[in-house]
Amino acid sequence: MGANSSESLTPTIAADHPGVGELFAVLAYGEISAFYRLAEDARMSPTLRGRVALARMAGAEMRHFETLEATLTARGQEIYAAMAPFVAALDDFHAATHPSTWLEALVKAYVGDGIAADFYLEIADSLDPSVADVVREVLAETGHSEFVVREVSEAVASSKQDKDRLMLWGRRLLGEAITQAQYVMAQREELTELVITASGDLNGIAALFDRMQERHAERMAVLGLA
Amino acid sequence: MGANSSESLTPTIAADHPGVGELFAVLAYGEISAFYRLAEDARMSPTLRGRVALARMAGAEMRHFETLEATLTARGQEIYAAMAPFVAALDDFHAATHPSTWLEALVKAYVGDGIAADFYLEIADSLDPSVADVVREVLAETGHSEFVVREVSEAVASSKQDKDRLMLWGRRLLGEAITQAQYVMAQREELTELVITASGDLNGIAALFDRMQERHAERMAVLGLA
Repeated sequence: MGANSSESLTPTIAADHPGVGELFAVLAYGEISAFYRLAEDARMSPTLRGRVALARMAGAEMRHFETLEATLTARGQEIYAAMAPFVAALDDFHAATHPSTWLEALVKAYVGDGIAADFYLEIADSLDPSVADVVREVLAETGHSEFVVREVSEAVASSKQDKDRLMLWGRRLLGEAITQAQYVMAQREELTELVITASGDLNGIAALFDRMQERHAERMAVLGLA
Repeated sequence: MGANSSESLTPTIAADHPGVGELFAVLAYGEISAFYRLAEDARMSPTLRGRVALARMAGAEMRHFETLEATLTARGQEIYAAMAPFVAALDDFHAATHPSTWLEALVKAYVGDGIAADFYLEIADSLDPSVADVVREVLAETGHSEFVVREVSEAVASSKQDKDRLMLWGRRLLGEAITQAQYVMAQREELTELVITASGDLNGIAALFDRMQERHAERMAVLGLA
């Protein structure tokens, strides 16, 4: 359900809205930075199976990156120039949420992806279908998270200490994600205008963040962290 | 052209040859180890464009891994058990050829992939088509090497010192690859039997290594390293 889907069933944001290019660009750099975080975090895996699981997720990020690159190129935009304004915010998010254990890495891979998907998919409902389709495609569940759910829920079922630590960790991931999202919005007028239009108004944005928090709690529960 | 294509146009190695599963398994772990080397080596990139280029190559390795995994699974083999015998040899290859500069990383990405492709594609010509198709698919040029060719050839055109260093580096990569290939063959009887059958006989293997050396020299020339 879109943020404003109860008020309107027609998309309110045209494909040529200037914020659309910025939306694709922030998504594209998000894929690249997630790729390198997953590859790096995989070093903590105690097993080859764990390293393969994260490599698979990273590979899916690159497929999504290539979709966004093709879309931006078709819109006449140069992807590196388009991504440049978002490098600092996303790098800062990853630097602030550097996992120190393999379980933290897994929770971050699952929960971080989920928070981003909630945000962008809500906005997608207000976008012209040609734009919304690309957003939905690059945020589609790739079915690679089953490994994470199994590993984490098994670990926390047998360790109260792990569970407590990872619950705090999840809260920190959500907090940092929202901080960086606000930082990006404060800097990019056109993208901000797009998000506000998609949400209806500033109250709509507040409601969107509330829903993201609820879904975050649901995801934590799936991992056994509730 | 296959090693024995002048003698025979029909494949000599059946799909159920016991070495075929080992061939898929060594290819599969090769993709995983290349994925992680590319992701790690990308840290040396001075530009985002370079990091994206290596991430793209790494993403292609994962797509190939998934093809091999599906193939092994369809043959009733468990991929982690199948890959286990090849982990040490491939990890040793990467440890022995750890690049110390960004240019070394690029040459390794290009030349290392090429050496492996030469070897496996020669063997593919002797395999049952159902097997050969998978081998060719996972070794297909992904078109991601243009970036490497441009970066390296530009750099060596303007620096005799870089050129000399990278020529030595290329020779070392070939030497280490052949060392590790021989180590694998000494340990895995069924895979060795497959390679000997594919090459005709031991003289055929020597001829195969000669051709690999020639193609390696051609590839180095493409990079401006001749």
